Amino acid sequence: MSETSFQVSVGEAFTAEDVAEAAEKPTEQVARYALRLGDDALILAQQLGWWVARAPELEEDVALTNIALDQLGHARAFLSYAGLAWGKTEDDLAYFRGESEFVNAQLFEQPNGDFAQTIARQFVASHFQFELYRQLQGSANATLAAIAAKALKEVDYHRDHADQWMLRLSLGTDESRRRMLRGLEVIWPFVEELFRDDELTDSLKGVAAAPSSLLEGFEKSTAAVFARCEIEIPAGFVARGGGRLGQHTEFLGHLLAEMQVLAREHPGATW
Amino acid sequence: MSETSFQVSVGEAFTAEDVAEAAEKPTEQVARYALRLGDDALILAQQLGWWVARAPELEEDVALTNIALDQLGHARAFLSYAGLAWGKTEDDLAYFRGESEFVNAQLFEQPNGDFAQTIARQFVASHFQFELYRQLQGSANATLAAIAAKALKEVDYHRDHADQWMLRLSLGTDESRRRMLRGLEVIWPFVEELFRDDELTDSLKGVAAAPSSLLEGFEKSTAAVFARCEIEIPAGFVARGGGRLGQHTEFLGHLLAEMQVLAREHPGATW
Repeated sequence: MSETSFQVSVGEAFTAEDVAEAAEKPTEQVARYALRLGDDALILAQQLGWWVARAPELEEDVALTNIALDQLGHARAFLSYAGLAWGKTEDDLAYFRGESEFVNAQLFEQPNGDFAQTIARQFVASHFQFELYRQLQGSANATLAAIAAKALKEVDYHRDHADQWMLRLSLGTDESRRRMLRGLEVIWPFVEELFRDDELTDSLKGVAAAPSSLLEGFEKSTAAVFARCEIEIPAGFVARGGGRLGQHTEFLGHLLAEMQVLAREHPGATW
Repeated sequence: MSETSFQVSVGEAFTAEDVAEAAEKPTEQVARYALRLGDDALILAQQLGWWVARAPELEEDVALTNIALDQLGHARAFLSYAGLAWGKTEDDLAYFRGESEFVNAQLFEQPNGDFAQTIARQFVASHFQFELYRQLQGSANATLAAIAAKALKEVDYHRDHADQWMLRLSLGTDESRRRMLRGLEVIWPFVEELFRDDELTDSLKGVAAAPSSLLEGFEKSTAAVFARCEIEIPAGFVARGGGRLGQHTEFLGHLLAEMQVLAREHPGATW
């Protein structure tokens, strides 16, 4: 690993280790909220990991892998924090929960599809996370605020990356535009779930970022990109949703099986 | 991607982009040598990429993925440089050569096996690359010297990482020790090939690092770890070798198929 990745985590970053050592035990409600954000990032990282050395360009391999690593870092911080409430580690939460205990929004578990579909998912994910972390850095909960402030800088790059590819594919060849539109068509039904308030977020005013309050910023920033891409904002039927309640599409089960098999075979990685 | 990974590549790093812009066209011999080192790193990165979100701990996911990214960075620099001799880009070389045109040593294409086998491969690879880059940073060829000097700092961490896991597994449980010894048994026959001089390296005195000259340092640094692990230095039959001549084990073909399929289906990634 690069020298700098170590130096950074000691200096300005708010890492999983920082959280496990420094943060105070969250309330049950805060932990459940942190778990949602951690699961979003963890599942997205796992999906993006598939692209390592499979992207159409070496430079893009590096970019997608860096994004996966950033998401993994955010996941670790949120899961470590949530785990404090229940005496569990990040690894307990990542590897030893069943599918119905994962509370990521369904967007994040949607399959990679072709490269354009991956970019469509990245476009939605990063514009959503950018609005989310921007608001959450002002949270009354100091730990959530610190994790969000660090994550925001990284997600800002993810958003740029997705925007650039949206432009390149939409305005490229007929075939690349056709694929980009198709990718958006598959992904867009999963947007609405991201902005639903529920009992948990209602109970955390001033602490959580109310999902519904993020919609305006999301619509504004994505609309600007759609305009440059000469794409009409997709309509798309709304997906059933329910990811926050542990209801998932067919794709999560397979993903978890792959992710969890080694840790479950060898608990504690000690063999 | 993190803010810092950008800042570093602008500052001190000698990246693929730097090489493509700044380096002078290498001779045919130098290009062939750079291709070997680039292929070693590229194939290792591809193998390590499999572990993303499959490792037994989230922290280890991050570590192995960071190592894969570093190797990908080294590969890109060496391949970009080699390509200047033939009017080819790094992507041309990565995605549009057949198996017999790859000149990585066979060690790097050996399969991940279980986690212990991956660590055994990492242990050999990083101790070898450390000796290699340490010598190569004094090369009469300024481009090779610059790439090696940057890579050396990163490989130093990879070596530490592998050493720590060798210790942890060897001195852990009976089962972890059994697996570590088994991993070394599988991997060790591929060590000898790394240190073979041939016509190409003989023709590049003062420019290339003569493979045979790296053996003493490798034996010394690995012996120290074996002693701490209470492991006898493996004997192991010598593998046939021939990777530098494009002769490969069964594992490379499948790896290349996965790595190249997308770029070949959509040349230029423009669809």
